[in-house]
Amino acid sequence: MSISANGDMIPQTTGHPLSIVFIGAGNVATHLAQAFEKSDVGNVVQVFSRSIDSAKELAHKLHAAEFVNDPSEIVHDADVYVVSLVDHAVDNVIKEIPRNNALWLHTSGSLPIEALTGKSDRTGVFYPLQTFSKQVPVDMTEVPIFIEGCNPGITDEIRHMAEKMSEKVYYADGDLRRRMHVAAVFACNFSNHMFTIADDLLRRDGLTLEVLHPLLRETVRKAIDGCPADGQTGPAVRGDKAVMEKHQSMLTRELADIYSIISKSIYSRHNPD
Amino acid sequence: MSISANGDMIPQTTGHPLSIVFIGAGNVATHLAQAFEKSDVGNVVQVFSRSIDSAKELAHKLHAAEFVNDPSEIVHDADVYVVSLVDHAVDNVIKEIPRNNALWLHTSGSLPIEALTGKSDRTGVFYPLQTFSKQVPVDMTEVPIFIEGCNPGITDEIRHMAEKMSEKVYYADGDLRRRMHVAAVFACNFSNHMFTIADDLLRRDGLTLEVLHPLLRETVRKAIDGCPADGQTGPAVRGDKAVMEKHQSMLTRELADIYSIISKSIYSRHNPD
Repeated sequence: MSISANGDMIPQTTGHPLSIVFIGAGNVATHLAQAFEKSDVGNVVQVFSRSIDSAKELAHKLHAAEFVNDPSEIVHDADVYVVSLVDHAVDNVIKEIPRNNALWLHTSGSLPIEALTGKSDRTGVFYPLQTFSKQVPVDMTEVPIFIEGCNPGITDEIRHMAEKMSEKVYYADGDLRRRMHVAAVFACNFSNHMFTIADDLLRRDGLTLEVLHPLLRETVRKAIDGCPADGQTGPAVRGDKAVMEKHQSMLTRELADIYSIISKSIYSRHNPD
Repeated sequence: MSISANGDMIPQTTGHPLSIVFIGAGNVATHLAQAFEKSDVGNVVQVFSRSIDSAKELAHKLHAAEFVNDPSEIVHDADVYVVSLVDHAVDNVIKEIPRNNALWLHTSGSLPIEALTGKSDRTGVFYPLQTFSKQVPVDMTEVPIFIEGCNPGITDEIRHMAEKMSEKVYYADGDLRRRMHVAAVFACNFSNHMFTIADDLLRRDGLTLEVLHPLLRETVRKAIDGCPADGQTGPAVRGDKAVMEKHQSMLTRELADIYSIISKSIYSRHNPD
């Protein structure tokens, strides 16, 4: 600790290991909490989740964290609070913790930094752009982390922490973060739904997505090694109406509508007037 | 050659290396022609393409194939004809070759086997379920090949050829092939368009899909190792209307419509009434 100009105690985020509270124990919290400890940024002293089982499960993966499910039990004197909850739950949980001088971070791609205003003068965002599953290890050094601080000094402090964890640390304000989040929804959530639809269709014939695994791997390899627009194939990019109409006639109304709107988008993207 | 019951000469597809003509020199033809030679199924003696450059480019990748761009120059006495053209071009090209006793195969997921009726009594389908790029080598042993013959004997003959090339050979009639093709369009063509939209959105901020590469890799790894439905994440599966509305307000009308229809489909798929 040191003393600030106005006499407040200020936790130093460099030098000694920080004490960290995780508010939330979902997929993102699970990976970040372990990454904070592994990279020697600090020690997680407490995990909060409305579900005590989730809080316990994450705490057990950490060195010496306690777990609580009542916001009133969250300690008030940690150095860092990492809020990793679904967006709409944030306000309700954090209002129970009194304002302090800690560094408050949230991990959301959609929430503005202002979501933490009122908790401290030292607020920021620590947004790892990755899809996490609790049980699957992720190489955090490869995960892009987008950071923002409420002032340049705090941004530097957060950057210093993030760079201990990942080789890919970028600054992004709330607007850019939201635009990246939209892009990630298309690239990740929506493409995964396309895989799900394919899997559903194949299961009706006693097959599964497994017959398409080589195709999937190659599609993504092409998109990553090159540029996805250059690798577009299929009836829509050629405007092959006969094949598209045949396909739509084989689908439910809902899937035929999806087929139609995406096909139109592919055609117009690749065949500008 | 041997003599059939009705006195016709029948080329044997086992024993001696077959002479093969490739009609088409696109991505599929390029990989298949090389795979036929590599697996010792036979020798490609001729490549036809309306584009002489394409025909020449493929012929040069083969052992001793000539290249032609006039259908009337296609030889009449090969053992196997592999028709690998866009569906609507097939009729026009093959009508120029007189009926013979060769084995005629097409490589399309959408065309019925009957597309070759009239060329020979020995027709079939050889449909490799993969997305090919001319310049990128593909491990054909991993590519599922779906086969069909006009009778059980021809099916066996085609299966024998396919098994020299790939470890994954399945029988599929025209209906099943079409249903798999639709599934492949969702899993491959449509997911690639989702990557393209993400890339387009990011480029407006001076970024590219590269910031999402770890996310993309993990999304596909999850879908392949598990089941894509189980790995669905994002605002739509949670029904997070606030985030979805914010996202749609940031998109063009066209992209907002796509966002909306896919989000609804995700929500209803994962939250059945």
